[in-house]
Amino acid sequence: MASPLPAPLVEAAIAAALSEDLGIAGDITTNSIFDETTTGTAVISARETGRLAGADFVEAAFKYLTPETNIIWHKQDGAALTPGEKVATITAPVRTLLTGERTALNFLGHLSGIATLTSHFVSKVAHTKAAIVDTRKTTPGLRFAEKYATRTGGGENHRHRLDDAVLIKDNHIAFAGSIETAIDKVRANVGHMVKIEVEVDRLDQLQTCLDKKIDAVLLDNMTNEQLKEAVKRINGQLIAEASGGVNLNTVTAIAETGVDIISVGALTHSAPCFDLGLDIDIPEA
Amino acid sequence: MASPLPAPLVEAAIAAALSEDLGIAGDITTNSIFDETTTGTAVISARETGRLAGADFVEAAFKYLTPETNIIWHKQDGAALTPGEKVATITAPVRTLLTGERTALNFLGHLSGIATLTSHFVSKVAHTKAAIVDTRKTTPGLRFAEKYATRTGGGENHRHRLDDAVLIKDNHIAFAGSIETAIDKVRANVGHMVKIEVEVDRLDQLQTCLDKKIDAVLLDNMTNEQLKEAVKRINGQLIAEASGGVNLNTVTAIAETGVDIISVGALTHSAPCFDLGLDIDIPEA
Amino acid sequence: MASPLPAPLVEAAIAAALSEDLGIAGDITTNSIFDETTTGTAVISARETGRLAGADFVEAAFKYLTPETNIIWHKQDGAALTPGEKVATITAPVRTLLTGERTALNFLGHLSGIATLTSHFVSKVAHTKAAIVDTRKTTPGLRFAEKYATRTGGGENHRHRLDDAVLIKDNHIAFAGSIETAIDKVRANVGHMVKIEVEVDRLDQLQTCLDKKIDAVLLDNMTNEQLKEAVKRINGQLIAEASGGVNLNTVTAIAETGVDIISVGALTHSAPCFDLGLDIDIPEA
Amino acid sequence: MASPLPAPLVEAAIAAALSEDLGIAGDITTNSIFDETTTGTAVISARETGRLAGADFVEAAFKYLTPETNIIWHKQDGAALTPGEKVATITAPVRTLLTGERTALNFLGHLSGIATLTSHFVSKVAHTKAAIVDTRKTTPGLRFAEKYATRTGGGENHRHRLDDAVLIKDNHIAFAGSIETAIDKVRANVGHMVKIEVEVDRLDQLQTCLDKKIDAVLLDNMTNEQLKEAVKRINGQLIAEASGGVNLNTVTAIAETGVDIISVGALTHSAPCFDLGLDIDIPEA
Amino acid sequence: MASPLPAPLVEAAIAAALSEDLGIAGDITTNSIFDETTTGTAVISARETGRLAGADFVEAAFKYLTPETNIIWHKQDGAALTPGEKVATITAPVRTLLTGERTALNFLGHLSGIATLTSHFVSKVAHTKAAIVDTRKTTPGLRFAEKYATRTGGGENHRHRLDDAVLIKDNHIAFAGSIETAIDKVRANVGHMVKIEVEVDRLDQLQTCLDKKIDAVLLDNMTNEQLKEAVKRINGQLIAEASGGVNLNTVTAIAETGVDIISVGALTHSAPCFDLGLDIDIPEA
Amino acid sequence: MASPLPAPLVEAAIAAALSEDLGIAGDITTNSIFDETTTGTAVISARETGRLAGADFVEAAFKYLTPETNIIWHKQDGAALTPGEKVATITAPVRTLLTGERTALNFLGHLSGIATLTSHFVSKVAHTKAAIVDTRKTTPGLRFAEKYATRTGGGENHRHRLDDAVLIKDNHIAFAGSIETAIDKVRANVGHMVKIEVEVDRLDQLQTCLDKKIDAVLLDNMTNEQLKEAVKRINGQLIAEASGGVNLNTVTAIAETGVDIISVGALTHSAPCFDLGLDIDIPEA
Repeated sequence: MASPLPAPLVEAAIAAALSEDLGIAGDITTNSIFDETTTGTAVISARETGRLAGADFVEAAFKYLTPETNIIWHKQDGAALTPGEKVATITAPVRTLLTGERTALNFLGHLSGIATLTSHFVSKVAHTKAAIVDTRKTTPGLRFAEKYATRTGGGENHRHRLDDAVLIKDNHIAFAGSIETAIDKVRANVGHMVKIEVEVDRLDQLQTCLDKKIDAVLLDNMTNEQLKEAVKRINGQLIAEASGGVNLNTVTAIAETGVDIISVGALTHSAPCFDLGLDIDIPEA
Repeated sequence: MASPLPAPLVEAAIAAALSEDLGIAGDITTNSIFDETTTGTAVISARETGRLAGADFVEAAFKYLTPETNIIWHKQDGAALTPGEKVATITAPVRTLLTGERTALNFLGHLSGIATLTSHFVSKVAHTKAAIVDTRKTTPGLRFAEKYATRTGGGENHRHRLDDAVLIKDNHIAFAGSIETAIDKVRANVGHMVKIEVEVDRLDQLQTCLDKKIDAVLLDNMTNEQLKEAVKRINGQLIAEASGGVNLNTVTAIAETGVDIISVGALTHSAPCFDLGLDIDIPEA
Repeated sequence: MASPLPAPLVEAAIAAALSEDLGIAGDITTNSIFDETTTGTAVISARETGRLAGADFVEAAFKYLTPETNIIWHKQDGAALTPGEKVATITAPVRTLLTGERTALNFLGHLSGIATLTSHFVSKVAHTKAAIVDTRKTTPGLRFAEKYATRTGGGENHRHRLDDAVLIKDNHIAFAGSIETAIDKVRANVGHMVKIEVEVDRLDQLQTCLDKKIDAVLLDNMTNEQLKEAVKRINGQLIAEASGGVNLNTVTAIAETGVDIISVGALTHSAPCFDLGLDIDIPEA
Repeated sequence: MASPLPAPLVEAAIAAALSEDLGIAGDITTNSIFDETTTGTAVISARETGRLAGADFVEAAFKYLTPETNIIWHKQDGAALTPGEKVATITAPVRTLLTGERTALNFLGHLSGIATLTSHFVSKVAHTKAAIVDTRKTTPGLRFAEKYATRTGGGENHRHRLDDAVLIKDNHIAFAGSIETAIDKVRANVGHMVKIEVEVDRLDQLQTCLDKKIDAVLLDNMTNEQLKEAVKRINGQLIAEASGGVNLNTVTAIAETGVDIISVGALTHSAPCFDLGLDIDIPEA
Repeated sequence: MASPLPAPLVEAAIAAALSEDLGIAGDITTNSIFDETTTGTAVISARETGRLAGADFVEAAFKYLTPETNIIWHKQDGAALTPGEKVATITAPVRTLLTGERTALNFLGHLSGIATLTSHFVSKVAHTKAAIVDTRKTTPGLRFAEKYATRTGGGENHRHRLDDAVLIKDNHIAFAGSIETAIDKVRANVGHMVKIEVEVDRLDQLQTCLDKKIDAVLLDNMTNEQLKEAVKRINGQLIAEASGGVNLNTVTAIAETGVDIISVGALTHSAPCFDLGLDIDIPEA
Repeated sequence: MASPLPAPLVEAAIAAALSEDLGIAGDITTNSIFDETTTGTAVISARETGRLAGADFVEAAFKYLTPETNIIWHKQDGAALTPGEKVATITAPVRTLLTGERTALNFLGHLSGIATLTSHFVSKVAHTKAAIVDTRKTTPGLRFAEKYATRTGGGENHRHRLDDAVLIKDNHIAFAGSIETAIDKVRANVGHMVKIEVEVDRLDQLQTCLDKKIDAVLLDNMTNEQLKEAVKRINGQLIAEASGGVNLNTVTAIAETGVDIISVGALTHSAPCFDLGLDIDIPEA
């Protein structure tokens, strides 16, 4: 039971998106042609193979325009989709269906795209213990939604934001003078519920991390041979995360090095939109 | 001189993005290690070939954290980039450089990705009169930025939102009973500064559009042969827009049919992030 | 079927207006005297002759305070009103009726005032083909509502905002060097769904506009003789808009020159409030 | 030294107004023709006789777009204006001058209109002790600005909102059963810094108000004879306010009855826009 | 019937508080363990003796998460509480109960703490005519709630904000040159519904206040002997307020000097949280 | 170097607080008496012994009103204060000093109160290894500030919000069926950078926690004997946190049991305001 989307954030995002699209006079095309009482039924269907994510946004978009909108979901978030499969059936005033369509599909296509790409990475490493994890390389304003989509696609979340967890990188180490000093400085300043991870790019940096009993190391841009050696040295004493150069062609071999975590920025910054269609059954005038 | 980004929208987006990333305690890693006075210099460089877009967001991100941040831009929005080329040099407190880095790069990578993809489409049709145009398939909340990025990449903007211009689609026509009636209804209800476009998927629908002297037709999912015939019949009397099935492999042939406009949803919904790096020169502690 | 008020904008405006009026302790007079359960019935009536606009705001105001408020509308937006005619009957807790009264009437009186003034202009030109059109001279923050009110009064909307349509004025022409250059520069930078209008104050400027096949000309502060000559030269090839010196005494003659559009800033910036009363039938304590 | 406009409210109103006007792509006309560095000088001048109010909004509008904008004010808020008089000289990028013009003038015209109308009422009663006072009949969202404008025009403010002061009206009295009970109930529930006013429409209601030592009475829709009698009976023991049927023709006689306060809804709900022009001196390209 | 909490302010505060606590992924503990359909019943009970305030926030918190939440209130705001007494019974999905618990109790404990402390002060002066009044020393953002809590505890509200009423203090008098001048300047600039209070710290300042017929004097940091003398001189001609050095040990003697009002900053700035528990009856999985 | 206050959150809180206090007409007392150019100097001094926290809010409050305000800080956040010690000297227009005083002091007094109370707890356990830690029992909307104040007072932060870290409590265990199952369910659903703590109230629950290698246990309401036994059994394998019944009288003995962490809700929900004065040196008029 992964954490669902916080409803207030969904509603605020829908309000902003509809406001962006409606302007001050709304859908002038639709409003010129349809009266406000004509009701229709729309079906959202998948047009390719993938994974669904973002149903709450579709609900919120249409219900924002017409609270009485009725939506039947044939597929739930996380479900596998094949071309032509029905995802949802929506009954509402046609004005609402047409005006809300683009906003609803923009969210659903974007998030399903992320969930789909995540699921591809996940399936490539399913025979290993490695988890696929997202990053902070998210679309500004939509991190809550995009990290939900990676969870929905079978991935896991890296830290949500800068105050959740510590990630000590090369610049921090350089200024602190050593990994050891950097860790000590951090420990003196953060609470007991904050995990500490250190980014290392050389194997000789590992021993300090083990000695200092931190929670995780980020093995950045290492060869698979280096990763294997790192996993061996770490020996389960802390979490081993690999990053850098991860794509659908390389991820399996990386996972087979024995790392616990593989983080992939592309999950959220480069997933193509998942193609969905919305077809409306319009009554005769 | 394409329209620049409205500064208030940039600032609001940066405020939201930083708030999303900082949480309530900020960058606890960086703040534990760096004092507030240590200043450093960061260089943003391209890591691939493409087109720059989004400098205003980088300015806004760092200046939001430290108004006195100094940024020298080696490349302007719209400039072509090659791997390794310096884009900007930023001098600010190291805390600001490290804390703002991800937000700045999330915007710059996303928008440069859109500008780059747009520029690829544009170069594919440069020998024709066709313009590459975006759609309303944008990331919710970032339409202003993404449509700026398509302009920066050499593309043009389709309507900004639902109240700007009329686009009569199949559902509108079905309910109105005919294209003619749909156009009449719209004309009776919208102002004189609003253009009217009708989506047609059959050549026999064109004549009505010509007779009604609308502004544009959207030729949806037509074969190139159909497009050529449509262009011939339209004969410059209104704007001919093609859409559907447009990708980097197909766009040249579509443009060579003689259409005026080719709209491409992928510009904004599926452009991969453009890869940029930020390297910091940190003084010794 | 003119475009209705976007509900989210109505609700946000009501929330802001009530917040402005309630302060932090609400209607201390009413709350001291009425308990929260006493229900009453209020009737809104016209106190002069005019046109109704703004019912959605009345709905939103009272329902914001008490969602179960029941409102029966005897007149719909756009209806003609005569003194004493009942507009709506509202049943709600008396606290809600008294606390919401001013906010509801402030909107209804303001918007009905605009609709009424618009309808007077419209009736003065009813025998001509001229449409009465609003401007961007609106009350800041209420443009969406005021442009709705002009539509409701039988008028039409000029552009909604600065990014919708192009209006080239004297300063633009002066800097560009010529009307022709100004149009060319604009055409190179705006999308295909954007109309272009040029403001001209001399007849000799018209030919360039016709040659460049723009969409409309704004004939500013011309005499009726000049307008007639302009209409003759334009001969239906583009839309002719007159502005400047338009009031209820002059508008008919202007319309009779044959122009298509007459824009009137006063519709939104100088319409007096329409007088409505709200009488409450209060039960005995 | 009347209270100035709270700067945060001015800035928020300007941000909202510019956002409303700029849309997502800004002033596409101006941006197509002017580069961002061309600077110009604009002069705001009065086109009719009246009273200036709203300079802060003009400052805020142009400085929001370009913080370095230079504005020289030839007239201050509250100054009398005659046609042709220069009000301000503004130096800024031409893009800023043209893009901000409408927003700046919308505020300045609206608020100067209110100040002007107020000053007309004030001058009609200058020989009496009566003060001209506004009401809560303000444009939603702009009460702070409109009540500032009435102060600027020489008027005074009635209560700012519902929690500031008590105004017991007919409905309150009806439900309470008597004026006395209504006052007692209010006194039991409001703080010691809250004034209490009772609306009376009959002279026989006055004695209770005097006996209960409230702060003011609102003499609603009384004849001037009744007002004179009321003033006589009140004899300076509390503040006498007249309202109802007040216009520029009737206000002098009302004031001459000896009342202390005359409240006029029209000051804020029906003041026509004050006509101002903005002329720009544009450099050659 | 003291003024209730304005619902929009309650809802906005709850939205902000839940947003602060939920982050972008919500209650990850609860969501991992409970499915979304399991319903439970929670009971809020008092754990000490005091006064209840803030039920509306509890309603709003749980209903924000699940609109169908059912809440039965065993005690109303203002009720006396003893340890173990049930306050409310809440039936909702367990996810909602656990996720909303802290936000609900944070408000209820804080406001009940204020109401409780206020009630203690009130009971100490019950045999006198003195009212216990709050100040502007409130927690930023929560003044509306905290002033409601002091009302609920039997206290009264001093002015709500700076534009409600005038309080002339030592600095104002020093700059004006005299109390008389300060009062005159204020009277020339504020409306007729605004009360005027002057802070005095010497008895010889009283006569001017009486002569100028202001509304109240704030007797600051006077000895009880001075207060008695002040009350004698004032003789009911204006409201006498005491402040400074007021605590539960001193308040009775202060009240017995005959002052009308005793204002106490501690009511809102130093009231400890009132201890309440929330126990959930969870069904077996 | 503990994490500083995020500037955007400080500024937003100040904007909200000033808006709450200024209303729509601002400080009508001060504005009636002082002109806008008179400058003065204010000194903030401590009136009791404690610890300073919140200087950024004072800066923000006065600079929000007048950006050119000059503030010299004699003490920094975290400094010990004794009665009479000067904290800051502020030079600004007197209007700004008087109008901003209450908002500035409300923040500074509240946060210094929290820092002071925290420092008292910290000093009581200084001879032990125990850290004093805050909770989520914060004032809604001010968690970021209050948790900063506990850091400033020498304490540490528990989790910032519900999505940062896992805290499994009795209700979670009850529904899951066992501690083991609860931990497994959580581990299956949260990311690798999230720490897991389990609340235990019996010693026999500890072994499972140790076996499952979680990060911390919350030993709730245990006797000191139980705590000692718990610490012995835990033996440094995970973090031992004590809570319940912690006050200044009990905290030392609790710390001496050897626990790592003692969490105290009272730090943020019941700290009394720290007393500070602001004295202004006003020039003669």
